[in-house]
Amino acid sequence: MNHRFALVCLLAVTTATGADNARNLRVDDARLNDSMEQMHAFGENADGGSDRVAYSRHNRDALDYLAERMKKSGLTAQIDAAGNLVGHRSGKREGLAPIIAGSHIDTVPNGGHYDGVVGVMAAIEVARTLHDAGAALDHPLEVVVWSNEEGGKTGSRSWAGTIEPRELDLPSLGDKKIGDGIEYIGGDPGRLAENAKHPGDIAGYIELHVEQGAILDREGIAIGVVQGIVGIRRWYITVEGFANHAGTTPMDQRQDALYAAALIVAEVRRIITGEPGRQVGTVGRLEVSPGAPNVIPGKVMFSLEIRDLSMEKVTRLFAKIQDAAIAITTANGTTISFDQYYESPAAPTDEGIETVVQNSADMLGLRTLHLLSGAGHDAQSMKGIVPLGMIFVPSKDGVSHAPSEYTSPQQISDGANILLQTIIGMDALLK
Amino acid sequence: MNHRFALVCLLAVTTATGADNARNLRVDDARLNDSMEQMHAFGENADGGSDRVAYSRHNRDALDYLAERMKKSGLTAQIDAAGNLVGHRSGKREGLAPIIAGSHIDTVPNGGHYDGVVGVMAAIEVARTLHDAGAALDHPLEVVVWSNEEGGKTGSRSWAGTIEPRELDLPSLGDKKIGDGIEYIGGDPGRLAENAKHPGDIAGYIELHVEQGAILDREGIAIGVVQGIVGIRRWYITVEGFANHAGTTPMDQRQDALYAAALIVAEVRRIITGEPGRQVGTVGRLEVSPGAPNVIPGKVMFSLEIRDLSMEKVTRLFAKIQDAAIAITTANGTTISFDQYYESPAAPTDEGIETVVQNSADMLGLRTLHLLSGAGHDAQSMKGIVPLGMIFVPSKDGVSHAPSEYTSPQQISDGANILLQTIIGMDALLK
Repeated sequence: MNHRFALVCLLAVTTATGADNARNLRVDDARLNDSMEQMHAFGENADGGSDRVAYSRHNRDALDYLAERMKKSGLTAQIDAAGNLVGHRSGKREGLAPIIAGSHIDTVPNGGHYDGVVGVMAAIEVARTLHDAGAALDHPLEVVVWSNEEGGKTGSRSWAGTIEPRELDLPSLGDKKIGDGIEYIGGDPGRLAENAKHPGDIAGYIELHVEQGAILDREGIAIGVVQGIVGIRRWYITVEGFANHAGTTPMDQRQDALYAAALIVAEVRRIITGEPGRQVGTVGRLEVSPGAPNVIPGKVMFSLEIRDLSMEKVTRLFAKIQDAAIAITTANGTTISFDQYYESPAAPTDEGIETVVQNSADMLGLRTLHLLSGAGHDAQSMKGIVPLGMIFVPSKDGVSHAPSEYTSPQQISDGANILLQTIIGMDALLK
Repeated sequence: MNHRFALVCLLAVTTATGADNARNLRVDDARLNDSMEQMHAFGENADGGSDRVAYSRHNRDALDYLAERMKKSGLTAQIDAAGNLVGHRSGKREGLAPIIAGSHIDTVPNGGHYDGVVGVMAAIEVARTLHDAGAALDHPLEVVVWSNEEGGKTGSRSWAGTIEPRELDLPSLGDKKIGDGIEYIGGDPGRLAENAKHPGDIAGYIELHVEQGAILDREGIAIGVVQGIVGIRRWYITVEGFANHAGTTPMDQRQDALYAAALIVAEVRRIITGEPGRQVGTVGRLEVSPGAPNVIPGKVMFSLEIRDLSMEKVTRLFAKIQDAAIAITTANGTTISFDQYYESPAAPTDEGIETVVQNSADMLGLRTLHLLSGAGHDAQSMKGIVPLGMIFVPSKDGVSHAPSEYTSPQQISDGANILLQTIIGMDALLK
């Protein structure tokens, strides 16, 4: 979807109305920062990390706290069938679908205090700011705290209607099965299908999140305008040679699976970096059999992951790697096989929402960088159903999923103000 | 030691004496082949392999059988302090040190029927042939069945005086500690030090063995004239980078330990094959941390093994690999460390004995190839104390340490006849 042209017209309209007042709204830095700190109470461990895994007692207690906070912000608050906490505020024009601002508060075990939490606390603070100012939007506004992001994006995917019944029997990252966990926090797994949304049910979706990478932090840039969440494909690749005595087998008579695999690992990097763009390719796992210092490796299994915003590019890069790998193994008396075992399609964001984010940053005098999200987010669950937008704030040293995860209060406030202004901009854009 | 020039003179002498009769001696093929088959009784398993591990009941029973067989061959037979079975036959000239023909009968678990056994049965058959013909040598002849070759060359190393007391407490490949095992087969671990030989105590050592490689088999050559047992050095090499998110870390900001390690694995092969010679270099073990498909590898540990007859060459090749590896890691933002954890020095054979082996093969019309032993043998234990010689016979497809290990009766007879003639030649040479 492309709302860029519509936006140009609408900006003129909103500028001429009461939107000037809305443009002057700012979140309350101290209140936002305090709310971030309140969240430590729910699951902080001895390492200073957070154990607020999905469907834990800490998760449930935090949702109770957030429901109260939503009510103070002029939002109704209820748990939906998938265990999502949904805060709703009516819009002033009839018949418009809601704008959704969402993120999550569940963590990985011994995770940090910022991944997900920043987006939730900022969205509630935005609602509070609008509420306190008596500023009504045309669209309804919903703040959603998605359930079980870290363990499979259960909540956001239920809105896309893509949860398979068998998933409810899978273990969550805590001590409960996902279905039992949904019930534990007040959801109703039997009515999950009712959550499914369709094009038109939602006007637009916006998510503020920490980058989980080091680009903004390194460049000293406050705001990342996310152009999309990259697609991911993963393969297991197996090279088979012949395990033999490392002392009695001359070099020219070896079928060394590790030597061939090493050449392929080098080729992966050469091919991935061989054309312009932000694609990444990774060999993260590699296992050698039999794996003894005095035995020529007979078999190597390794993973390959390629990520890019264009799935066509992923396909093309893999084909190049596959060709090179086959040539390498053929030349070395080994054989190769490829097994794709995972795919997460790319989710480009809406160009109109991107422009709204950029305009908001321009207005607030904050520097931006347009970048991709290399990590997955709830936003991508609803790809194709709703126009998506994402705003990133810096992660110190790019650290994520660890106790040392950090984004400063000022960076969080900047992000929250961009979220506020983006929602105001989306309210004008998405009609 | 170089006995080449001495040999030329001595050949003239022996040719002029009763040595012509000795030259016409041949082993009894049927008797030798039968003795090989008798050995199956001691430890053959359901796979057709042998479980005659050192210090097992099968090992002890086989030694009893061999002692009887030695006695029929005109040898006295006794177990020494290290559990070696030593068969002795006097020489006709006073004051000469014995010529030793040795090998082993212990196997790896589920090993084959040829590794070691061929050398032992052929040596006893050689003694029997000399005995039956009433042919006396100038030197005493000793046939030695070394104890625990597969688990640490305990028997042959006791003759070199290099067994450390703590080794006796180490587990053997069977169910006993090495010290207890020695006692079990009739040795006396408390008197091990008495086994140590010094230069002059032994005139020369010769060992017939299966190649355990595929060179003779592939070339269809009956006899390998062993130029030495290669030296071995092994290192563990650790490359440390930085484990990071495979989605959010751009390619140019990675410190990928596996990418660096892969380039090093490729360099190992390039450097090892980059100069003439029979050196081999192997990376057989490689472990990646954390080892997840979506995490850039932060650490890789891998083994490096280099073998050659020249330890100077091993040193030089390693230095080249080390330089290349340091350059690779420096260029990739990773660090590297090298830990040498094993060395087995090279043991060149005596050129004079080599010539005797070659002359014996010429006389018998058998084709030879001069080659290195890439595997370790009891012979190398006595490097520096005694002139060493080794004779190889083919291993089908190079297979060893497995039930499918095979050398044909004809190939074994050929080897035994070369052993016989080599001992006769050594008797003339080594005075």
